[in-house]
Amino acid sequence: MNKILILGGDGYLGWPTTMHLSSIGYDVTSIDNFSKRKIEIENSIRPLFRIETMQNRVRAWNRIAKKKIKFCYGDLLNHRFVYEIIRSIKPDAIIHYGEQPSAPYSMAGREQAVFTQNNNIIGTLNLLFAVKKYSPDSHIIKLGTMGVYGTPNIDIEEGFLKVKHKNRTDIMHFPFKPQSYYHLSKAHDSLNLSFACRVWGLKVTDLNQGVVYGTDTKETRISEELNTSFHYDHLFGTVINRFCVEAVCGKPLSVYGKGSQIRTFLNIEDTLKCISIAIKNPPKKAQYLVRNQFTEIFNIKELAILVQESSNKIGIKTNINFIQNPRHEMQNHYYNPQNKSFIKLGLKPKKINQKFIISVLEKINNYKERIDIGTIDPEIKWDQNH
Amino acid sequence: MNKILILGGDGYLGWPTTMHLSSIGYDVTSIDNFSKRKIEIENSIRPLFRIETMQNRVRAWNRIAKKKIKFCYGDLLNHRFVYEIIRSIKPDAIIHYGEQPSAPYSMAGREQAVFTQNNNIIGTLNLLFAVKKYSPDSHIIKLGTMGVYGTPNIDIEEGFLKVKHKNRTDIMHFPFKPQSYYHLSKAHDSLNLSFACRVWGLKVTDLNQGVVYGTDTKETRISEELNTSFHYDHLFGTVINRFCVEAVCGKPLSVYGKGSQIRTFLNIEDTLKCISIAIKNPPKKAQYLVRNQFTEIFNIKELAILVQESSNKIGIKTNINFIQNPRHEMQNHYYNPQNKSFIKLGLKPKKINQKFIISVLEKINNYKERIDIGTIDPEIKWDQNH
Repeated sequence: MNKILILGGDGYLGWPTTMHLSSIGYDVTSIDNFSKRKIEIENSIRPLFRIETMQNRVRAWNRIAKKKIKFCYGDLLNHRFVYEIIRSIKPDAIIHYGEQPSAPYSMAGREQAVFTQNNNIIGTLNLLFAVKKYSPDSHIIKLGTMGVYGTPNIDIEEGFLKVKHKNRTDIMHFPFKPQSYYHLSKAHDSLNLSFACRVWGLKVTDLNQGVVYGTDTKETRISEELNTSFHYDHLFGTVINRFCVEAVCGKPLSVYGKGSQIRTFLNIEDTLKCISIAIKNPPKKAQYLVRNQFTEIFNIKELAILVQESSNKIGIKTNINFIQNPRHEMQNHYYNPQNKSFIKLGLKPKKINQKFIISVLEKINNYKERIDIGTIDPEIKWDQNH
Repeated sequence: MNKILILGGDGYLGWPTTMHLSSIGYDVTSIDNFSKRKIEIENSIRPLFRIETMQNRVRAWNRIAKKKIKFCYGDLLNHRFVYEIIRSIKPDAIIHYGEQPSAPYSMAGREQAVFTQNNNIIGTLNLLFAVKKYSPDSHIIKLGTMGVYGTPNIDIEEGFLKVKHKNRTDIMHFPFKPQSYYHLSKAHDSLNLSFACRVWGLKVTDLNQGVVYGTDTKETRISEELNTSFHYDHLFGTVINRFCVEAVCGKPLSVYGKGSQIRTFLNIEDTLKCISIAIKNPPKKAQYLVRNQFTEIFNIKELAILVQESSNKIGIKTNINFIQNPRHEMQNHYYNPQNKSFIKLGLKPKKINQKFIISVLEKINNYKERIDIGTIDPEIKWDQNH
């Protein structure tokens, strides 16, 4: 278990994962098509921290790392590229972050919805065919989202549900109810992946991840050149990161709706720990394994209050604004997802607290002049006319 | 409820549906991109009955029909075409057969799997965006497949399942377990359609159809010019139709595996009755309604025996061959799908029997010289190397 291929290695999580797996001794090859950087250009947004081109970040890492990273530019929609990289590397594990990751982007209009589903579904199909042909023992670790489950009125199990119906039972896929064309693309991927395990004998771990927050990992802290792509804008910004940027730039924290929506969360450093654990605990041949990847559960209002109180502690006065929810989601709902899988395998969650939020606020404050306040508020409504 | 748009109007079911709805007084516009005729050319297969070009069939129908049909050549992947046709017609109901319909084709290799999922998913997304923009009250009647459910160990309900789990309950999508990239595309469509109802307020009936058999409907019997595209080959041929052709040409009936797989079936004339019933019983705004569209349940071996006995009756001696199953499917399994929805609305099923099979054998016999025996046996294996 030595050779790792990372798809989407230029992203918020892909880049820290690339460095982390290199730092703990894996031979890492990372690929990216820079799709997210292109969407940034089209939408006049940019990550908060100054980041170099991927190629320069790789050079910076390779100057200090014992294990050098290889990087290739390439697109998962180009099947010749995918077949060639799988054939030539035959990776022990493939970490698949290589998808369009923004729910709002996928809801902006037909073109974006089609781009998202085509990119994510077909890219993953190309990967499955390449792995089947050239490296069927590779362990595919696919990043999914807790959003595939929606907010059902029953406990959310990890991928499967033991169903009892009219005195008979079966273990079935936990039913999906995704809430955007992006989340739908992840559900479609999951069904395709499960099929490829069942019929072709492939090995897949599907990680249904919560909302990731945080600015740094051990490796990004080494040097500014190794920063990751931190977003706070309406397309790629996730809620805790966005609240922290709003606090620093003196904008009220914008809570969508009443903020009683409940979601799952994890620290960016726990994402890396989970990936390491997933690599070391592969499924059996023909097994499709699902792990829910999050550490804590909050409603959005609680998080706004946490960020407000933390910023008050360091002398930043912050208000909370309840704005119209651009999304279509339940305000008040039962929510009890399970995450025993990683805990049983030894994950020690890094819990969120004021001290942590203050460290994030301080890092953001160093880049305060780069904040583009006009890109924060939601521009895409779930029910707009397209 | 007068204007009907049929997508995929050139197909085995699309063409009889087009004539039938015209004959009972609807204003019908039918579109097709001839994707299936193109796949026929590429794979050296053709329908058993001589059929004219779609344009000529429409002319033949319009010579005798009170209500004329309109036909447009166009592709659902061309969103400008889709937007324009929805904008200009604003149909009361849209019957959506416009998808790549072959499971074996979708398993032939990467290119075919990608074609199938791209064509089916993106075509349907284009339709959803067009309907949302120009005709949100149109009732979309989408043809799906019973194959999305797989063969679970519990009764298969119609689209939804009341789940009780840890003393809580919810009504959830019935979990999917499709068995080919084609069947998967239908599951992906279903999740996208359900989302568009929930979030945009569209109205969708999703018809999970069983295996259709039969050569004729009331309208195709009027004249040879009105024949439908009847297939018996390894790509588009469905099991009963194929058995009948094998019997006529003196080839042993080829049962995949032990033939103990159980599936659902319906007569092509019942498909038309179901479509009429679905049109007259639309869902409410924002409702995603699922009906299981089949009338009978058989295992494959029973059907082979039925065809064998029927052909014996008219002096055709027929053997049954059990061949290696090219598909990946359970041989012995529980199977109890529900179909109360259409029965409650008045569907009187046309049950299969020897007399019916004999009528099919006799029609096929008229085209015996057109049978290409080399195209019947399966060429595509579910687990082959692609």
